[in-house]
Amino acid sequence: MDFIAATYRLTCPGTEVERLSRDIALEQTVEVPDALIACEALREAVVGRVISITPRPQPDSDSAEQFDVRIDYPADLAQSGLSALLNLIYGNISLKQRIRLRGLQLPASLLSHYRGPNLGVAGLRQTLGVFGRPLLATALKPRGSTAEQLAVRARAFAAGGGDLVKDDHNLADVSFDDYCRRVKLCQQGVLDGSQESGRTCLYFPNLAAPMGDLERRAEFLVRQGIRGVLIAPMIVGLDQVRYLAHKYPLSFMAHPTFAGAYFHDATHGMEPGLLLGTLFRMAGCDATVYPNLGGRFSFTAADCRQIDEHSLAPLGELRSAWPAPAGGMSYENLGQMASDRGEDSIFLIGGALLGDSADLKASTARFLDRIVELFPRSISTSSSNVNDVVSACELPAPPGTQRLLEHVRFVQGFRWDGRDPVPYKPSDELPFRDVSRTELIGTAGEKTAFDLRYFEIGPGGHSSLEKHVHTHVVIGTRGEGTLVSGGKSVTIKPFDVAYVPPLQVHQLTNASSEPFGFFCIVDHERDRPQQP
Amino acid sequence: MDFIAATYRLTCPGTEVERLSRDIALEQTVEVPDALIACEALREAVVGRVISITPRPQPDSDSAEQFDVRIDYPADLAQSGLSALLNLIYGNISLKQRIRLRGLQLPASLLSHYRGPNLGVAGLRQTLGVFGRPLLATALKPRGSTAEQLAVRARAFAAGGGDLVKDDHNLADVSFDDYCRRVKLCQQGVLDGSQESGRTCLYFPNLAAPMGDLERRAEFLVRQGIRGVLIAPMIVGLDQVRYLAHKYPLSFMAHPTFAGAYFHDATHGMEPGLLLGTLFRMAGCDATVYPNLGGRFSFTAADCRQIDEHSLAPLGELRSAWPAPAGGMSYENLGQMASDRGEDSIFLIGGALLGDSADLKASTARFLDRIVELFPRSISTSSSNVNDVVSACELPAPPGTQRLLEHVRFVQGFRWDGRDPVPYKPSDELPFRDVSRTELIGTAGEKTAFDLRYFEIGPGGHSSLEKHVHTHVVIGTRGEGTLVSGGKSVTIKPFDVAYVPPLQVHQLTNASSEPFGFFCIVDHERDRPQQP
Repeated sequence: MDFIAATYRLTCPGTEVERLSRDIALEQTVEVPDALIACEALREAVVGRVISITPRPQPDSDSAEQFDVRIDYPADLAQSGLSALLNLIYGNISLKQRIRLRGLQLPASLLSHYRGPNLGVAGLRQTLGVFGRPLLATALKPRGSTAEQLAVRARAFAAGGGDLVKDDHNLADVSFDDYCRRVKLCQQGVLDGSQESGRTCLYFPNLAAPMGDLERRAEFLVRQGIRGVLIAPMIVGLDQVRYLAHKYPLSFMAHPTFAGAYFHDATHGMEPGLLLGTLFRMAGCDATVYPNLGGRFSFTAADCRQIDEHSLAPLGELRSAWPAPAGGMSYENLGQMASDRGEDSIFLIGGALLGDSADLKASTARFLDRIVELFPRSISTSSSNVNDVVSACELPAPPGTQRLLEHVRFVQGFRWDGRDPVPYKPSDELPFRDVSRTELIGTAGEKTAFDLRYFEIGPGGHSSLEKHVHTHVVIGTRGEGTLVSGGKSVTIKPFDVAYVPPLQVHQLTNASSEPFGFFCIVDHERDRPQQP
Repeated sequence: MDFIAATYRLTCPGTEVERLSRDIALEQTVEVPDALIACEALREAVVGRVISITPRPQPDSDSAEQFDVRIDYPADLAQSGLSALLNLIYGNISLKQRIRLRGLQLPASLLSHYRGPNLGVAGLRQTLGVFGRPLLATALKPRGSTAEQLAVRARAFAAGGGDLVKDDHNLADVSFDDYCRRVKLCQQGVLDGSQESGRTCLYFPNLAAPMGDLERRAEFLVRQGIRGVLIAPMIVGLDQVRYLAHKYPLSFMAHPTFAGAYFHDATHGMEPGLLLGTLFRMAGCDATVYPNLGGRFSFTAADCRQIDEHSLAPLGELRSAWPAPAGGMSYENLGQMASDRGEDSIFLIGGALLGDSADLKASTARFLDRIVELFPRSISTSSSNVNDVVSACELPAPPGTQRLLEHVRFVQGFRWDGRDPVPYKPSDELPFRDVSRTELIGTAGEKTAFDLRYFEIGPGGHSSLEKHVHTHVVIGTRGEGTLVSGGKSVTIKPFDVAYVPPLQVHQLTNASSEPFGFFCIVDHERDRPQQP
C-alpha cells in the first residue's frame, strides 16, 4: 500500500500533542471518533497513521511548544484527484487552530496521474530561444487603460527584447467581444515588437471569466495562436486549472491572488512552497508568480527560496515550473536578484520598468542588457520562429462550445447539409454490399445517449449479417427493403418503424430497383458487431 | 456610479494607517503606485476610495492599535462575476499582513446579477413539508464503508423521521459507475425509509469529482430524481458552484472544508459570516455547514451567530440560505441549540446520533421528538409527495417480454399500427396547444438507451416552452414548423434533423395551416422538463 506522508507543525502543549495528532489522522479520513470505527479492516485501509512526533527546540521557556508530526494517509484516499488531495491534506483541519502543513511526500504511483506543466522550464526556453539566464517579464496595467494603450505597451516591451508580457490579473473584460478585441490588439502589439527586436516575445492574457465562459475564452486564445495565459488558481479552483491545462495546449502562469490566508501566520495554513510550488505545479502551472522579497508583500527570503525549490526540484516525472518573483525589483538590485534566484527564474517587473523611463522600449532593453551581463554565458537566439508564434499552435478541432441548436438541413436526393455519406464500414469487416452511411447526430459532440444515422442500400445491396448487444431502431425513409431479424422478416416502407432487440442476428436487404433508405438509431455507447 | 463598500480592520500604528489604507485602494484596483496613474479620469473610474478611518477603542496601552477602514470600489470592477468580486475585495491584499475583511455592502445593481439559492429556506421547507422548526440532518460516514452499509444507515435515518441525509464530504468514488451505484442504493434507502415513516426525507450526495467529470455526475443526479447535493466551494471554486447552481435544478449544501485559513486569525482573512454566509449564498448555496460552537473546531458563539445572520438577512432579492451548524450537538443540548439557533437552522448531527443508540432509526426518532417538543407550533406534514420523489424522474416502463423483432407499421394519415396517439402531457403542467404524442419505441419494454416518439402539432399549435438536461433530436416528418432553441429559430421541413442541447429553452410551433409532424428522439432516462 502506498502512502502520502504529510508533516504538520502543531503549536500545543506537550501533554496534548498525541491526542491532537490522532485527531488529525481521524478528522481527515473517517471523520468519526475512534470508538465509532466498527472494524479493523477499515482502520487499516482508511485511517491516517501517526508515524512520528518530533518536538522542536524551544528558544526559551516562554515560547510555545511546537512539534513536527508526520501522518501517513493511504494514497488511495486521494485517487479521485486533486480536489480529493486538498481535502485530505488540509480540508477540515484548516478550521482548527495552530496546525500548519509543512511537508508533503507523494508516492510515484499518485504523481503519475498528474501531467503537470505543459511546457515547464525547458519547454518555455525552447519556445523563446533563451538559455542560461532568467526571463524578463512584465505586466500590462493599469486596469482602466484602453486596449490600444495596453497594446502600445506590449509592443514597446517586445521591441525592447522582453521575453514575456502578461495581463495584470485585474484585467477582466466583461464581454467576450471586448476580451477578444483586447487580446488581438495586444497579441499584434507583441508580434510587431518581436519583429522589431528580431526576438520572440510571448503574450499571456488573463484567463478569467465567469465559469461557463472560461473555456470559450481558452478556445479563442488557442485559435488565436496564444501560447500561454495568466490564471488565479485559488479563485478559479486548483482542479479547474488542472482540467484546463490538460485540455488546452497553453502554458499556465499562476497568480497568487486570494492565496495569502494560507501563509500569513507561521502556526497555521501551509508553507508557500507547498501551495504555490508543489500543488500549483501538479495542477499544471508552468510558472508561479510570488511576491518577491523587498516588495509590497511580506514574504521572507526563506519563503522565496522554498517556492523556487518546490518549483524546480524533482517531482515524479513532472516538468519543473518557473518561479516568477514579482515586485521589489529595480535596475540596481538585479545583481542581487541574479545571485539569489539563479537562471531558472522569471523576473516579473512592473512598476520599476515603467518608472525607469518614459520610454518602455528603452528601459526594457536596459534591464535586459543588465541581465545578460549578469549571466555572461546566456544565449538569446534571434527569432526564427516569430511567425511560428502565430501558427505553430496545433489548433484544436472546431470548438466544443455548447451549441444553442444544431440544424442539419435536408437538402435533396436524401443528403443533408454538411453531412457527407461515408463508407458503411471497413471493407475487411463483415461482408456487405452497396451501403452508404451518413452520421447525422451523435458524433459531432452532441450530448445524447444515442446516435442518429441515415443508411442507404442500393438495388441488390445488403448490410452485413450480424448481431450485437446494442439494439437498433429503424425508420423507413426512402423506397422499400427487407429487415430480417431472429428468423423473422418484415418489409420496411417509409415511416415504418422497427426494433431489433439485443443479440438478434439481423440484416437489411434491398431487392428492389430503387435505393432503400432508412434512419437507424443506436445507443451512443455500443459494442462491436459480431458474426452470427 | 454604484459602489461596493468594503470595511477592513487594519492592525497597525496610527502613523501608518492612512498610507496603508491608500495602498489597499490602489493594490486592489490598478496595482500601480499613485504616481503612475496617468490621468484623472482613470483615477475616478477605477481606483478605490478611502471613505473613512475609524480608530478602535484600545483595551490597554500595550495592545496593538486597530482601525476600521471603509473603502469604496466602483461596482463595475466586479461586473464580470463572482471571481472578479473575490479578487477585488480580498485578492492581492490576502498576501499582506494584518488586514481583515469585516464588512461588505453590495449595491442592488450588482446583486441583481446573482440568482442565489435555488430553493433557500422557504423552498426546502415546502419540499419537505416541514415548518416552524429546525431540520434534522445527518451525514453518511465513515469513508471506507460499503455502499450497502451506507444505504442501510440512510434508510434507518429516513425511517426515524429525519429530514435530510447528506454524504460525508470525504466520500469520493473514483469511478463514475461506483458513484452511480452508491447514489442509487442510498437514494433507494432513503425512499424506503420515507415510505416507512410516511414523511419525506431528502438525500444529498457529495458532488465531487475531477473537473471535467463533475457535470456528468450532476446530470446523473438530476436524472435520478436527486434534489440536492453537498459541495465544497473552497475546493471546487466559488464561481464553479454558482455555475452549477445556475445550470442544475438542485439544492446546494456548502461544506466549509479548506476554508479555515480565512478565519483562524482575527487580524487577517475575513469574517466567517462573509464567506460562509454572504458569498456562499451569492454562489447559490441553499445551506451552509459550519463548525458548531462546542464541537471539535474553534468557532465562537459570535462567529456562529454571524453566519446565521448573513445567511438569513435580506440580501438583494436573493433567497435566504439555511445555516447548518455541525458537530457539538447532543440530545442534552438540543434545548440550548433551539434557543441559540432558532427554527431556521439545519441541525447536522453525526456522531451524536450514531453514538446515541445502536439503532439509528430509534435515535433519529428520539432526536426528532425532542426538536418537535422544543418547537411546539411546528408542522411536519406527512408525505403526500414521497411518490413525487420517485417520479420526479420519469421512470422506465416495466420491461416487456423479449421480442425477436418489433415492427411498428406505418398505416396512413401518420398513424402507426397498435400505437395510438396519447395526450402530449398532463394539462396542468407547462402550457401547450394542440399537440399529440405517439410512443413508438422505448416504452413497450424495448432495451434502448432512447425513446422514439412521433409528435403532431395542429395548425396554430405549439409545444410547451421548457428546458431540461436531456437532449432532443427532431426529424421533420410532415408539413412544416418552427423550432426555437436558445433564442435561435429554424424551420423544420420533412427529413430535416435538429438537435437541442442540454438546458436550452426550446419550443416547437406550427404557424401553417397543415399539421406539423416530427419524430422526436430522447434519452430513455431523463429529467422532468422545467419552466424556463
